[in-house]
Amino acid sequence: MDKKNEKIIARNEDFAKWYTSIINEAKLIQYYDIKGFMIYQPYGWAIWENIKSILNSKFRNIGVQDLYMPMLIMESEFEKEKEHVEGFSPELFKIKHIGDKELSETLCIRPTSEIVFCNYWKNILKSYKDLPFLHNQWVNVFRAEKSTKPFLRNSEFHWHELHCCYETKQEAINQAKLILNIYEEFISKNLDIPCIKGEKTPGERFAGAVNTYTIETIMQDKQALQTATSHFLGQNFTRPYQVQFQDKNNKFSVPYSTSHGLSTRTIGSIIMVHSDDNGLVLPFDIAPNQISIAPLFANKFPELDKIAEEINDKLSKKYRTNIINEDKSLGYIIAQQQVLGVPFTIIFGKKDIDDNSVTIFRRDTNQKQVIKLNNLDQYFINESIKYKNNLYNKALQNNSNVIKNATTYQELAQIVNNGDWALAFFEGSIDDEKKIKSDLGITPRCIVDNNDNKVGKCIITNKDTKQLVLFARAY
Amino acid sequence: MDKKNEKIIARNEDFAKWYTSIINEAKLIQYYDIKGFMIYQPYGWAIWENIKSILNSKFRNIGVQDLYMPMLIMESEFEKEKEHVEGFSPELFKIKHIGDKELSETLCIRPTSEIVFCNYWKNILKSYKDLPFLHNQWVNVFRAEKSTKPFLRNSEFHWHELHCCYETKQEAINQAKLILNIYEEFISKNLDIPCIKGEKTPGERFAGAVNTYTIETIMQDKQALQTATSHFLGQNFTRPYQVQFQDKNNKFSVPYSTSHGLSTRTIGSIIMVHSDDNGLVLPFDIAPNQISIAPLFANKFPELDKIAEEINDKLSKKYRTNIINEDKSLGYIIAQQQVLGVPFTIIFGKKDIDDNSVTIFRRDTNQKQVIKLNNLDQYFINESIKYKNNLYNKALQNNSNVIKNATTYQELAQIVNNGDWALAFFEGSIDDEKKIKSDLGITPRCIVDNNDNKVGKCIITNKDTKQLVLFARAY
Repeated sequence: MDKKNEKIIARNEDFAKWYTSIINEAKLIQYYDIKGFMIYQPYGWAIWENIKSILNSKFRNIGVQDLYMPMLIMESEFEKEKEHVEGFSPELFKIKHIGDKELSETLCIRPTSEIVFCNYWKNILKSYKDLPFLHNQWVNVFRAEKSTKPFLRNSEFHWHELHCCYETKQEAINQAKLILNIYEEFISKNLDIPCIKGEKTPGERFAGAVNTYTIETIMQDKQALQTATSHFLGQNFTRPYQVQFQDKNNKFSVPYSTSHGLSTRTIGSIIMVHSDDNGLVLPFDIAPNQISIAPLFANKFPELDKIAEEINDKLSKKYRTNIINEDKSLGYIIAQQQVLGVPFTIIFGKKDIDDNSVTIFRRDTNQKQVIKLNNLDQYFINESIKYKNNLYNKALQNNSNVIKNATTYQELAQIVNNGDWALAFFEGSIDDEKKIKSDLGITPRCIVDNNDNKVGKCIITNKDTKQLVLFARAY
Repeated sequence: MDKKNEKIIARNEDFAKWYTSIINEAKLIQYYDIKGFMIYQPYGWAIWENIKSILNSKFRNIGVQDLYMPMLIMESEFEKEKEHVEGFSPELFKIKHIGDKELSETLCIRPTSEIVFCNYWKNILKSYKDLPFLHNQWVNVFRAEKSTKPFLRNSEFHWHELHCCYETKQEAINQAKLILNIYEEFISKNLDIPCIKGEKTPGERFAGAVNTYTIETIMQDKQALQTATSHFLGQNFTRPYQVQFQDKNNKFSVPYSTSHGLSTRTIGSIIMVHSDDNGLVLPFDIAPNQISIAPLFANKFPELDKIAEEINDKLSKKYRTNIINEDKSLGYIIAQQQVLGVPFTIIFGKKDIDDNSVTIFRRDTNQKQVIKLNNLDQYFINESIKYKNNLYNKALQNNSNVIKNATTYQELAQIVNNGDWALAFFEGSIDDEKKIKSDLGITPRCIVDNNDNKVGKCIITNKDTKQLVLFARAY
């Protein structure tokens, strides 16, 4: 059962080519003739739609409202927040023409929408009674990237951007942390990916943020992928964009804002954490097809089609199912479902049905099992949970021993040169971060939570610090 | 109960201002600082999300797959379909710069995506066995408009665009008609708006289409609104964009394509067909809140909050509900729910509950009714259907006598000068259509279906024709 699919490159042969072969063979996307842009094929888009649907229901539970903001922003509006404009300027798609006519004011396609949300809030916010705002949109955003890679780095990508506005600083900080916890829950429980939670160092913060909280995940090649971020923006946006409200004492106050995003990068993380040399392995909760149903040689035994329909009718009430109608061999079907990463495939021929049983192929273990037809319901109740736990635990095991302690700069260099992650006391400047990046090709991924109040010497400044920072190569 | 809300302008006073006052007071949108762009506030966006959800489930039933196409198109790609590029060129948002750098090739923001779909199909289509393709996306599109109006004419608007590709001409024509029927079903049964179905005259066709089928609807001011269109494109796109397949005889053939769209204009139609001088009236199926629950003076009688929760728990299993927690009077609450167009509002004070009853305000009739608490379930089963039928029938009644027969050009002019719609035999040229438009300010809305093979004289050419055409002023 561990036979490798020929069209999928082996991970240990070439990890980057393995990634590309999975994307191509599973028909997730098609390349497009403008660099950094891509076509989401139905199977790839369905994964994103499932991510949207689960995450959005979590947002609804805490009172988030969906809305839609215009995609274009006047260039002059950008200039009001200095750090923000510096961070995004080189990547902006700019519109100076409509048809043959030149515009008097240049328009930019949104790289993110903090500015637009502030301009909205400025108009609708009157009193502290109106707050908080929890406003979300699921949209495409644009940042011209020099080096592009499907899902991981695209010039057009899709995300949700949640923007919140609060009366007090503390409420906004709490919200930034709450949303990070929701991301952690989603990524670990629904995508079965272990999360590292922390705060970004100054050099890695979102342009314009006071603090950026992050979920970092570890790929099978040990590189880091930032999977979701949650920003406390203080008054950095509300003040220059003149958002204000009448507080409890009838005075004008400036509110505090946050912003939060999770994007189609997540699909890259799913691929690189779970998949194997046979193809894609999809988390159960977001798989477009959770269970495939494959009658064998139904052209010879038409009654098998009927049984496939019966099984489908039952299971489709609880799961996303599909029937495979092709007349192919067992081996072909398994290889095909392996490439697509379908969690479970029910396979049966005439003999199996005469015996009231079916074979079930499980994608996480690549194992087959024979099950009696009347045990199917119970099988999926149990095995879908086992499948999820197994994916999570396999990923956890891949990550074990990746993180190593570094007490000196030399140790840091050794660890990361071996491809591992280094955990070190660090409280250096942005320039120090830049130096480490240019020396070693790594970045501080995050200041880790819960360091138990330990104190150590910063590996750069040699000064005492409580700040434990994870360093790694990152996508 | 027929008291007019002060903030809503009366329809017979100024229809355009009435429309704007509804949009503002119901908080559907906020204006934005770039002309033709607007912010969808949560309530307005929720209407669109509900439209999406119903229509998409109808598409799923016929095997449509959702995907996502890049938003930017190379200008050079546009040039390959002459009519298409002529139709859209003046409205295109063009990108010639990223950051400070000039691009070597100009990029356009999609005004529609026929070209991109063909470029996708070209790569994935091999054999007749791969067909048909039924590919859909829910996206924003951009067409710079000189004169803009919320929902009706925006430079950025939202729609679904369904693109289908078929082996034979007849299949493609059938698909164009099938999708038109799905639109008709959706608009008449879910939006409760009577539909006029027909085919566009040559001057009103989509740029590049062989045939355009349309759903036209009649607003309360008797103007027409084109609410959905379905295009048979022949090989006009597949041929220049080099889409081909191996047919049953192993020869290369060019497939036939169709495209179909319904946009946020639909919300304009909902407003202008159903609403009244008290505010918005929303169709039951797409109302963000179908039932509001309003305890009166719950601050004095806290047990009312508990009852509101109980009612909500029950009804929210079947309907979209919300509890109004403001301590306001009966009159205030009704006026507020009228503005928002909430179909049903359950209102109760201490005395009502002591009597095991509640008052229900119905938005379509603007009438109150007292109902026993234990009859609530049955009430909504019956009344939601009555509500829908009533909206539809009211609209139908508004439309009665609007359409009048014209046998000469003079009669046509008289009818449309009275603000009515004229039905006339017409088979003139595109130039004739232009002349009528410039003379009378009207356009041919459609060639009507089912003219029973009647023959008459064309009001322009005086030649015999079977073509009966509806003329009207249109948004």
